[in-house]
Amino acid sequence: MLNFELYNPTNYIFGKNQVEKLATLIPFNAKVLLAYGGGSIFKNGIHAQVTEHLKGHEVIEFSGIEPNPRFETLMKAVEIIRKEKITFILAVGGGSVIDGVKFISGAVNYEGNTVDILRNRILFKDVSKVIPFGTVLTLPATGSEMNSGAVITIDATHEKLTLGGSALFPQFSICDPTVIQSLPKRQIQNGVVDAFTHVLEQYLTYPQDALLQDRISEGILQTLVEIGPKVVENPTDYKLASNFMWCATMALNGLIQKGVASDWATHMIGHELTALYEIDHARTLAIIGPNLYRVMFETKKEKLAQFGERVFNLTGDSTEDIAEKAIEKLVSFLEEMGMETKLSQATTNYDNTASFIVNRFEERGWKAMGEKQNITLDKVKEIVELSY
Amino acid sequence: MLNFELYNPTNYIFGKNQVEKLATLIPFNAKVLLAYGGGSIFKNGIHAQVTEHLKGHEVIEFSGIEPNPRFETLMKAVEIIRKEKITFILAVGGGSVIDGVKFISGAVNYEGNTVDILRNRILFKDVSKVIPFGTVLTLPATGSEMNSGAVITIDATHEKLTLGGSALFPQFSICDPTVIQSLPKRQIQNGVVDAFTHVLEQYLTYPQDALLQDRISEGILQTLVEIGPKVVENPTDYKLASNFMWCATMALNGLIQKGVASDWATHMIGHELTALYEIDHARTLAIIGPNLYRVMFETKKEKLAQFGERVFNLTGDSTEDIAEKAIEKLVSFLEEMGMETKLSQATTNYDNTASFIVNRFEERGWKAMGEKQNITLDKVKEIVELSY
Repeated sequence: MLNFELYNPTNYIFGKNQVEKLATLIPFNAKVLLAYGGGSIFKNGIHAQVTEHLKGHEVIEFSGIEPNPRFETLMKAVEIIRKEKITFILAVGGGSVIDGVKFISGAVNYEGNTVDILRNRILFKDVSKVIPFGTVLTLPATGSEMNSGAVITIDATHEKLTLGGSALFPQFSICDPTVIQSLPKRQIQNGVVDAFTHVLEQYLTYPQDALLQDRISEGILQTLVEIGPKVVENPTDYKLASNFMWCATMALNGLIQKGVASDWATHMIGHELTALYEIDHARTLAIIGPNLYRVMFETKKEKLAQFGERVFNLTGDSTEDIAEKAIEKLVSFLEEMGMETKLSQATTNYDNTASFIVNRFEERGWKAMGEKQNITLDKVKEIVELSY
Repeated sequence: MLNFELYNPTNYIFGKNQVEKLATLIPFNAKVLLAYGGGSIFKNGIHAQVTEHLKGHEVIEFSGIEPNPRFETLMKAVEIIRKEKITFILAVGGGSVIDGVKFISGAVNYEGNTVDILRNRILFKDVSKVIPFGTVLTLPATGSEMNSGAVITIDATHEKLTLGGSALFPQFSICDPTVIQSLPKRQIQNGVVDAFTHVLEQYLTYPQDALLQDRISEGILQTLVEIGPKVVENPTDYKLASNFMWCATMALNGLIQKGVASDWATHMIGHELTALYEIDHARTLAIIGPNLYRVMFETKKEKLAQFGERVFNLTGDSTEDIAEKAIEKLVSFLEEMGMETKLSQATTNYDNTASFIVNRFEERGWKAMGEKQNITLDKVKEIVELSY
């Protein structure tokens, strides 16, 4: 097990009607930017609930943070905060809105060209230099409600890039599983697959003597296998909804990553597919993930076999045999979750995707990725071509 | 799943040589009380390491915090802090020292009779009114390094009572698994059983639709079953030591308790055995736990069977059959961990223990305990008598 630090100061507030606590969570004298995406929070009543509990605060609204939030859009909010002297941001939405608010929080007082925050992967560590924020989660998937990372798209160059740092944890996150009831089926499917893949990125590496992290990861995966297909069909079932929401947070709140080297190459490649073709984030992971495991089989076969045995109860003649079955079982699960697992099912004109992505990575100076830094650009090309 | 709040701001710093970070963790202008127990931290070199990294700070030492820390002892430290205007406490030790420091931290500025902190179970919620503290853990067992609770003994009346509150989280905890190397075998055994029982208190209740919490609990239990007996024999094996230490923290840092009703009656009864006979805390749990499960079988049989199936891979003809086997397998595991599982093996003159404990609980106004509040005083009597 590697040395690690576990620090997560987010006050995570989970359950029915917890939005009532909003009034006590935001500093009484705060001037608030209420940030959200499109109109869904008007349809499902969350906008009305939130504004009810914000009474007494001066509130300015900022709408239009899109899925895969754009740097260009977020900079408009940054300007409003600077001009209006906003002191607190409330993000109401899913991972895109929360990620967007993390960028806004850090960018307001950033001295320099704000696009460099993304290009140079700036880490924000000083809480006194960011705008504090809380969240009301409306779509479980990304774990952004309890971590300090974010992914932002630069529209001008079609790039998805990351930022983060310990100053960018939400002060609080209100997570009410009943929000799932009003989500489109496709978003619930995406949420389950996104959370599932987050675990795989941290778990499907190689044996690292981290016995408990493995068990917790397997516990999240087992729970998502048990409830994932059901929650899509029965989003009003509180047992299913609450376990789904809690799994999605636990998949990426930092816990299972402690003490281990993790992969994240599926995300790095997947982000390019979203930037190029606007394929839903989770759906890019379903296309890339299994093929990455096929190409990196020798590196990952022990953990693939452990995944197959413990999560899918597979048996077989050898480590290799169980590992191969595990990849096929994963594909079946992704298909059961409504995913397409080939790029050709999600877009046309994909012929040059592999070389285009490799060029992108080369331009950024990326030479290799993955838990052993052995997913070279040749391997990336192979993985993407296998995904066509 | 019940509504919950998860808030844990402790900066948990895990791994080899992490004590080197001490200098950056304590405020540079702090006047420090260095609190510890007996002489073990001199023998294993930790006192020397800690003082090396405290150079530049004004430090006053306070030694003699005993196992099952005494109110009377701790009040001496409270007086020193008040007199010397100490601004930070560093606890170096196991759960007893850390628990003791939590009491000290809260008691210094407490207005009123400090014994009432224990008698009235005062919750400390205002960080500005307690003395901030950090810890260097020398004995994995209690989880106190990453939670805000403590158990203190009043020597005058032989009572073990609790305190806590969100202001009593350590600011940081440095947890280096190599400290296990110098521990007596008995303390490692106790640590494993203490952590194991902490999980059981939160997990062995009834099905509560908390699928992920169950999986995480089972993951800690599975890991402790796998490594517990081995780490006693091979405390220098870093794989074993690191997984043991991490399990002990995760068993009681609050995570697995979120969203579920938990039991804690084994601890409440066990504390009385320690107060009466000075039996090691973990050993009281090994005596009481299995008998509590026998007496409360109807309430707990579903989770006992799940425990048996998932943790011990047991099979059987019925829920009851597997549940009964699970209790016997638990007893075997406790014996393998060097525990005596009968009161008569740990002390003599125990004849009136059951009625004495019931009287104690009556005096405190306690009528029932457990996750369903159905462990009445009659049941307590039955449990203790079955444990003779």
